[in-house]
Amino acid sequence: MTSGQRGVFVTFEGIDGSGKSTQARLLADALRAQGRDVVLTREPGGSPGAEEIRRLVLEGDPDRWSAETEILLFTAARRDHLERTIEPALAAGQVVLCDRFADSTRMYQGLSRGDLRALVDQLHRLMIAREPDLTVLIDMDPEVGLARAKGRQGTEERFEDFGPALQRQMRAGFLALAAEFPDRFRVIDGARPLDAVAADVLATVGAALDMPAHG
Amino acid sequence: MTSGQRGVFVTFEGIDGSGKSTQARLLADALRAQGRDVVLTREPGGSPGAEEIRRLVLEGDPDRWSAETEILLFTAARRDHLERTIEPALAAGQVVLCDRFADSTRMYQGLSRGDLRALVDQLHRLMIAREPDLTVLIDMDPEVGLARAKGRQGTEERFEDFGPALQRQMRAGFLALAAEFPDRFRVIDGARPLDAVAADVLATVGAALDMPAHG
Repeated sequence: MTSGQRGVFVTFEGIDGSGKSTQARLLADALRAQGRDVVLTREPGGSPGAEEIRRLVLEGDPDRWSAETEILLFTAARRDHLERTIEPALAAGQVVLCDRFADSTRMYQGLSRGDLRALVDQLHRLMIAREPDLTVLIDMDPEVGLARAKGRQGTEERFEDFGPALQRQMRAGFLALAAEFPDRFRVIDGARPLDAVAADVLATVGAALDMPAHG
Repeated sequence: MTSGQRGVFVTFEGIDGSGKSTQARLLADALRAQGRDVVLTREPGGSPGAEEIRRLVLEGDPDRWSAETEILLFTAARRDHLERTIEPALAAGQVVLCDRFADSTRMYQGLSRGDLRALVDQLHRLMIAREPDLTVLIDMDPEVGLARAKGRQGTEERFEDFGPALQRQMRAGFLALAAEFPDRFRVIDGARPLDAVAADVLATVGAALDMPAHG
């Protein structure tokens, strides 16, 4: 069913514990069951080179890199991921589901220092120049998300070293991005049971893929 | 003798085997003998983080990174080197001698694909925004340089995997940069005996440091 279909690039964003990774996986399963050719990937990482850069950034002393160097390294990883994984899949007509993408960088860096958002955007325009067709924001109250994250095995390294106040800022940051890019963002209430959220995600993405949605 | 003196940033450029690393070292010795506080460093690398990025770029399959990703990684390494090594030394009034800097990136990338020079410059303006006070180009015929490089132990990894035709292009690339930035470039004939070149380098840099030159 792949040939002739245009590739579609869908990203998942949300605070830790929001269930975005689970929802990306469930959507991949559902789309594959419909015969779609799906690539499920994630950032930072998503290609062998980008995974190496991910390790360089996320392992070791968190202060070993300045914010600016870190943004350059994440941009290098994103460029590799884009060239080696995302663009070839889109060219082959596949659906690419990506757990975190540039919006995570915009949100995290913008939160840490106001002037960094502009730098992230300039580097993005220069070196990435690709926006998702659709961004699914799994939105929820941080208290719910934190409780879920703590109950889970295998945390996402330092991305979860944040308290409730910062998580609230992150939620607000993602919602601000959704307001900034209304054409591609879809905000989905993630505080409901998993199946209800998954049905909503499938209906939303299915509509965007111009496919009948199976809710 | 350091306090109160302003730091000076001097870079050394040249094709492989030109003797630029040796000349940087000899100049460091000569300036130290004059009581100057000197930091001798090199690129790619020059700080612990930048050395790690250097390994990521230079080890393994040379085609593992696209030119664009490689430029991002080199810019990340340069940013770290600048923040951790170069700027603190300049702020402390030291003389920083750096074996290769942004001109090497401009020359190599510009040679491999014409459009990359503009990309290197855009990234440099955005993330580095620092030019040397003085750039010493050790210029020589590539045949002489290659013969010297082959006679030396410990080559500079893949930077020396180039034949004579490419080396001639590199020489021309460096001379073009010297013509583009005449205020900071000094072209020194490197085909003479080591001591004669060293005396010339010391006189040239010494004049720029506003010191009596010992030639």
